[in-house]
Parts: sequence; C-alpha cells; structure tokens
Amino acid sequence: MISEIIEAINEGQSFLITAHVRLDGDALGSELALYLMLRELGKNVVVYNQDHTPERYRFLPAEQNIIHNISNVEQYDVGIVLDCSDLARVGDEAENIGKIKKLINIDHHVSNNGFCSLKMLDAHASSTGELLFRLIREMRFKMSKDICTNLYAAIITDTGSFRYSSTTNETLFAAGTLVENGADPQWIAENVYENDSPVRLKLLAKALETLSLDMKNKVGSLVVTQKALLEAGASWEHTEGFVDIPRTVRGIEISILYTQRGDNHFKLSLRSKAKANVEKVAKKFGGGGHIHASSCWMKGDIESIKSQIIKAVREL
Amino acid sequence: MISEIIEAINEGQSFLITAHVRLDGDALGSELALYLMLRELGKNVVVYNQDHTPERYRFLPAEQNIIHNISNVEQYDVGIVLDCSDLARVGDEAENIGKIKKLINIDHHVSNNGFCSLKMLDAHASSTGELLFRLIREMRFKMSKDICTNLYAAIITDTGSFRYSSTTNETLFAAGTLVENGADPQWIAENVYENDSPVRLKLLAKALETLSLDMKNKVGSLVVTQKALLEAGASWEHTEGFVDIPRTVRGIEISILYTQRGDNHFKLSLRSKAKANVEKVAKKFGGGGHIHASSCWMKGDIESIKSQIIKAVREL
Repeated sequence: MISEIIEAINEGQSFLITAHVRLDGDALGSELALYLMLRELGKNVVVYNQDHTPERYRFLPAEQNIIHNISNVEQYDVGIVLDCSDLARVGDEAENIGKIKKLINIDHHVSNNGFCSLKMLDAHASSTGELLFRLIREMRFKMSKDICTNLYAAIITDTGSFRYSSTTNETLFAAGTLVENGADPQWIAENVYENDSPVRLKLLAKALETLSLDMKNKVGSLVVTQKALLEAGASWEHTEGFVDIPRTVRGIEISILYTQRGDNHFKLSLRSKAKANVEKVAKKFGGGGHIHASSCWMKGDIESIKSQIIKAVREL
Repeated sequence: MISEIIEAINEGQSFLITAHVRLDGDALGSELALYLMLRELGKNVVVYNQDHTPERYRFLPAEQNIIHNISNVEQYDVGIVLDCSDLARVGDEAENIGKIKKLINIDHHVSNNGFCSLKMLDAHASSTGELLFRLIREMRFKMSKDICTNLYAAIITDTGSFRYSSTTNETLFAAGTLVENGADPQWIAENVYENDSPVRLKLLAKALETLSLDMKNKVGSLVVTQKALLEAGASWEHTEGFVDIPRTVRGIEISILYTQRGDNHFKLSLRSKAKANVEKVAKKFGGGGHIHASSCWMKGDIESIKSQIIKAVREL
C-alpha cells in the first residue's frame, strides 16, 4: 500500500492537504511537514483547514501558508486527508474534497472507517506525524530542519511529550532522528506548552477552589462554572489540560472535569490512570471515548451529577 | 578512561554505590540500575543514601534495598559516586566514603570539580542515567527490564520528559533502546508525575491567588507564604514545579517563585525561557545557578523585594 501512495505522490502534480476540524499539533505538524516535502519536490500544494490555527501552533514552519477557503477542487490531482478517521471530520468541505480524483488517507485512529482506497493506517502509531516520518523515510527524502520541526511537534502533542501509552521505542527513535536533523526539543516544547493565554491561569485558580478528592473511590474532580469563566474572562477552551490535574494526586485513578455549558447542563471529561475504565462510566450516560479518556453530557445540579458518577464508578 | 572504569568494575568484588543528598530521579534511577547490573555480575553491592527515597520514586525496581547507614568502609573495593559534582554532595559520610581505595565518579554537571581520578564526566549528557546507559552498552551487558526502567526514569526526570535543552538525539535514542528492552513510558511517567501529595494541589490553589503577570517586563510570579503553607497543611517541598507555572503564559520569559522561609525572609527560585538570563539576576542578590534556572535569598517585605527584582530584570 505504501508503494502505491508513493507512486501517487510521484505522479501527481497538484495536491490538496487537509486534516480535521478543531486542529491539534498532530494534524497541523503533519500537514505542514507534508506540504514542505511536496513543495521541495516541485509540486503545487495547498493546505486547507476549515478552522484557524490555534495560537500555540502558529510557530510551526510554513503555518502562514494555510488557506481557509477552497474552490474548484477539480484542479487537484491528489487530496491527502491527514489524522482523520472519517472524511466528515474535515468539516463543511468534506463532500467537496471527496470529489478529488485520488484521495489518500494517513491516520492512526483505531476508529478509522477506511473511507478511501489509498490509505496508510496504523492504530499502533503514536501519531500521524510518526506515520509521515515512516513515509518520508521510505521515500528516501532528505528531511529539512523545518520538516523535522513540524513532525517533532506532531509527535509530542499526541504523546503528551512521550508520556502516553502510545509512546513506543519507534516513537522515540523517530524523535531522535528528527532532532539529529535539526528539530530543537526545548524550543518546540516551549512553544507548545508555554504559550497559554494569561486568563488560563486565572481560570485555573478558580477551578482549583473546587478541587474534590474522594480517596476512597479514587476519584478527583474540578468544576468550571459559567460564573468562573465570566469572572476570569475566559472561555471553555481555556480549560485545556485541567482534567489531568486531579490525577496528579497519589491514589487518584479517575480524574473528572465538569464544565458548565448551561443552567444545570455539564460536559464531563474523564481521564484515568492504571486500570480504571472511564469509557464504561461515560457510556452509562450516553457518552463514549476509550478506556483512559472519555466524555459525556449530563443534566441536573452539580451535586446530584457528582453522586451519580460516584455510583457509576463504584459499579465498575 | 571508560575502559579503566570497566576494568575496575570487572576486577572489584565489593561495591558501594552512592549519590547526592536531596535525592532526585536521576540519582536514584542511576544508582539502582548500576546496583542491578553489579548484582547480576555476581558482585557484593550496597546502595547507600543519606536521605530517604521520596515517595514518588519508591516504585523504582530494587529501591527497597537502599541502606541509610554504613560502617567499616574498608570492606569495599570500589566506591561509585553518581550524579555528584563534588564528594561533599554525598552528605555526612562524604569523608568516610572518600577513604574507599578506588573511587569512581560518574556525573554530568558542568560544575564537576574532578574530585577523584577515575571518572566519566560529560556535561553534554542529559543525565547521569544517559551516561550509565553508555557505560552499560560499552560493557555489552544485556540490560534487564528493571535496569531499563531505572535508567528511563533517570532520563525523564532530568529532562522534564524530554523538554529541557539537555535533550539531544542521543538522549532520545537511548530512551528508545530502553523502551525496546522493557521500560514502559506511560507507567514510569505516571509514577513520576502523578504521584503527588493531595496537599500540593491545595497549596497550588493558594499560590495561584498570588499570581502576578508583568507583561511589559515579561515576568510572572507566585508567592507561597508561611500562612499559605500552614493553611494547606503543606511544607515547602510541596512547591516542587510551581516555579514553572507562570512561564506557561505566552509572553512571559522569566518565572519566579517566592517562598517565605521566615518573617521578611524569602527564597527566590527563578526560571527563564528563550534568551532571558536569570543567573545574572540571582547573582546580583548573592545567589547563583545557570542561565535558565537560578536561586537566591532576599530579606525585606515582599513588595519591596519584587520591585528590586523587576529593577534587576530591566537592567539585564
């Protein structure tokens, strides 16, 4: 399969690269690494994203070349859809992009539905960035520093800086090669992890006031109310990473972030460590995800929601 | 030099391994990896530390074998001092340990004073764990899973999970080999980073109330007062990592943690990103460290201390 993808790349002249809405570092780093390679190979290339690049990823080399409108998809020989388990994840232009003669999908999600025939899928890869690393090596293409920076950023954002279970020896060897060829681990980590809005810490201060640690049931949680958002001048996007905080406590296995999205309406993000299965908890309330990371929506006052959750955890 | 160290290891029969007081993951992981190798080689070995192992590192394989008292150092053929730039860093038994016939020092600190003749020093290595990895490979010793776990923990704690500037391609290749041979990145990271006392988050909530962000001078700070420690039931050890929080804000280049150690007496921990030089600031007030991490002590009320610091930063 990989040789057919390489053939399509070699034969095509005009390319559209895209990824999913709600962009993350893996989607963006992968898009831009591929863009830079195709450009160096003398191809015509565009990167199209429905959403704008979050501030923390604007440092990625070539980011300023991303476009947010497309017309006339017939002009492209090949469409490359990255980090998407389903074509619909591309957003409003999914159907349009589906019309491109030759589609290639490169992805690492377990849930991938195989929406096109040319594909490079590996649910054991840490990231789409790691898959692109393999593809580029297979092509014997000499990676520039900018390509390495993009792939390195892709890998660290999808592995939590090599902390998640998706991290393998292959991931670390790929990262080593990227650093050998010019990626700067400290500079990239600084850009990705130390680039928050000041309101995030104001919101965190308020969220920590709600910290509850149920050591008996090994559940820790934080609540972000609409009042807290208002007072901090924040939006719910600023809660990124809050869910990981309660589980930094020894003995806590399940970490929950309750964000209020309306009167008596909460979104729950659940994370677990060790063997606790939060997917089962989320499913009980109509949500889903996987063992270590799931989410669901619940209605009611926060105290009754919390006790329903504790009950569900006890029944695990 | 490395061949002389290997010779000393092969010839010796009885070994004492030690490291510095105020133990960290690099000191402990390195000690225990070396201990396990020497045991497998059929040697008599003890690991001696003055301090007890912090809770977060008690998961390290063979940790329960560490001893905290020594007598009769004449019984040891070789003493191996790890992660110490100076023999005195070992603590109260330094002089005693200095009497062991053959001393070996393996260390990566720039400030190493070369206190013994047999040494393996490299200030460009991320960690003593990385140096031991090189030594063990050079000996062609087949690393067990437990040795790999110890070395992996050593490397991640000294690189902030591959985020600090000390991270090189060699560091990542070593980590990849350790994972290939059995180290589990997620399990180790969970133990190291998600193993805090519950009071730490209570203290963090209080510290965040003091957050100050001076965007003009790019300085962010937190204050931990004795009152906050008392109210949270915490001690100043629980402030570990707090200094890194203000610099997660976009535009902040210098991060300062003020911890009150007495009436009108504060310890300052300073961190920087990008090109800001906090060593210069700390030196102005009789402290020291290096460009990106320094500390000093100051007397006075917190507001006057803060304005002295801002003045020093402006003069950089």
